[in-house]
Amino acid sequence: MQVSARNALKGTVKKVVVGSVNTEVTLEIAPGVEVTSIITKSSADKLQLTEGKEAYAVIKSSDVILAVD
Amino acid sequence: MQVSARNALKGTVKKVVVGSVNTEVTLEIAPGVEVTSIITKSSADKLQLTEGKEAYAVIKSSDVILAVD
Amino acid sequence: MQVSARNALKGTVKKVVVGSVNTEVTLEIAPGVEVTSIITKSSADKLQLTEGKEAYAVIKSSDVILAVD
Amino acid sequence: MQVSARNALKGTVKKVVVGSVNTEVTLEIAPGVEVTSIITKSSADKLQLTEGKEAYAVIKSSDVILAVD
Amino acid sequence: MQVSARNALKGTVKKVVVGSVNTEVTLEIAPGVEVTSIITKSSADKLQLTEGKEAYAVIKSSDVILAVD
Amino acid sequence: MQVSARNALKGTVKKVVVGSVNTEVTLEIAPGVEVTSIITKSSADKLQLTEGKEAYAVIKSSDVILAVD
Repeated sequence: MQVSARNALKGTVKKVVVGSVNTEVTLEIAPGVEVTSIITKSSADKLQLTEGKEAYAVIKSSDVILAVD
Repeated sequence: MQVSARNALKGTVKKVVVGSVNTEVTLEIAPGVEVTSIITKSSADKLQLTEGKEAYAVIKSSDVILAVD
Repeated sequence: MQVSARNALKGTVKKVVVGSVNTEVTLEIAPGVEVTSIITKSSADKLQLTEGKEAYAVIKSSDVILAVD
Repeated sequence: MQVSARNALKGTVKKVVVGSVNTEVTLEIAPGVEVTSIITKSSADKLQLTEGKEAYAVIKSSDVILAVD
Repeated sequence: MQVSARNALKGTVKKVVVGSVNTEVTLEIAPGVEVTSIITKSSADKLQLTEGKEAYAVIKSSDVILAVD
Repeated sequence: MQVSARNALKGTVKKVVVGSVNTEVTLEIAPGVEVTSIITKSSADKLQLTEGKEAYAVIKSSDVILAVD
C-alpha cells in the first residue's frame, strides 16, 4: 500500500509500552533520533510490532507544527 | 515555551516553498532524513523560516501512524 | 504496506479537483456514500489518482468525531 | 448544529466498547462498511450512544489519508 | 446535531479571509480572545459565515497541545 | 520556543484528571470559558501542570471545526 502522507520515516522499533487500550511505540529513525507513536493496542497487535522490527512512522505534513527557539 | 507534544525533532530548514495561503517547509532532521510540514504563510513569516535556519518539527504522538512492509 | 490506522475504507475515485497546492479527491465507498479527502498535489500525482481508480480512505479512529441529531 | 467538516457519514451504532477513559464506537455506514471512532467516555455518555442508535461519523477532509495498492 | 468533541467555544465571526480553496475564519470567543480556523471554501459557503454571525469553534481535546513558558 | 500554530490561548489550569496513560487538563482561558486537553501523563508530568498554573492551549487552525446553530 502506498499512502498520500508526505512523511514516511523508516526506523527500528526501540520500545513498546502496552497499555489497556493504547500502546506506545518508539521508533529510532536515525542514530539518536526517536519518534514516539500512540496507536490502539489492537493495531499494534495486528502489525506485530516488537523491539528490533523495522517500521515506518507515517505523518501528514499538516500534522507537523514547526517551532524555533 | 515548552510543549506537551512528545516529538520535537531538531533540524535545519532545507527548502521553503511559498504558496498563496500555505507554505511548505522541509527540515533535515538527520543526514538524509527529511520531514515536510505545511503551515500557514503568516506562521512561516512570523517564525522567519529560511534555508539553513535551525527549527523543530513538533508532532503529537497520536498523529504518528505506524506502518510495516 | 500495512498501517496502524483502524479505518481503511475501500472505494473508487469519483472526482478529482486539482488546486495550486492541494488536491481534493472524492471516493465512493459504497453506493451513494462518498468520502472527500484533501491531500497535497504532489501526493495525488505520486499515487496517480484518477477517476475510476480504486483507492482507500485511511482514517485514524481518533480523527472520527461522532454526532447525533 | 451544522458543521464545517466535509464528511458526515450517517450510520447505526454496531458496537460500543467502554474503557476507563475512552470509549470505542463502531458505526455501520453501509452494509458491511464500518467506521471505528475513539471518543472520551464522557462524550459517549453525553451522546447516549448505544447499539442500534443512529449517529454520524464526522471527519475533516484533511484527516483522510488516501492509499492505493 | 450534538457532537462528541469536548470543546465547543461560542463566538462571533470577526474576520473572513477567502482563499482559492480554503477560507480563514476568526472568531472572537471572549473579549480580546480570538480563535482562527481554516476550513474549505465550500464549507464556509455552506455555513454562510460572515462577520458578526454567531458560530462555534469545535475542537477535540486530543488536538489541544499544552505549553508553558 | 515559538510555534507555527495559529492559536495559543493563555489560561490558568482549573482541573487535572490523571488517568493511567493520559491526563485530562482543563484551562480557563477567559472568565467562564474553558478548554479541555488530553495529553500523555508523561507530558503532563514534564510540564508540571497543576491547578492555578499558567499555561497555553496551542491549537492548529486546521484542527478547528466551525459550527453554526
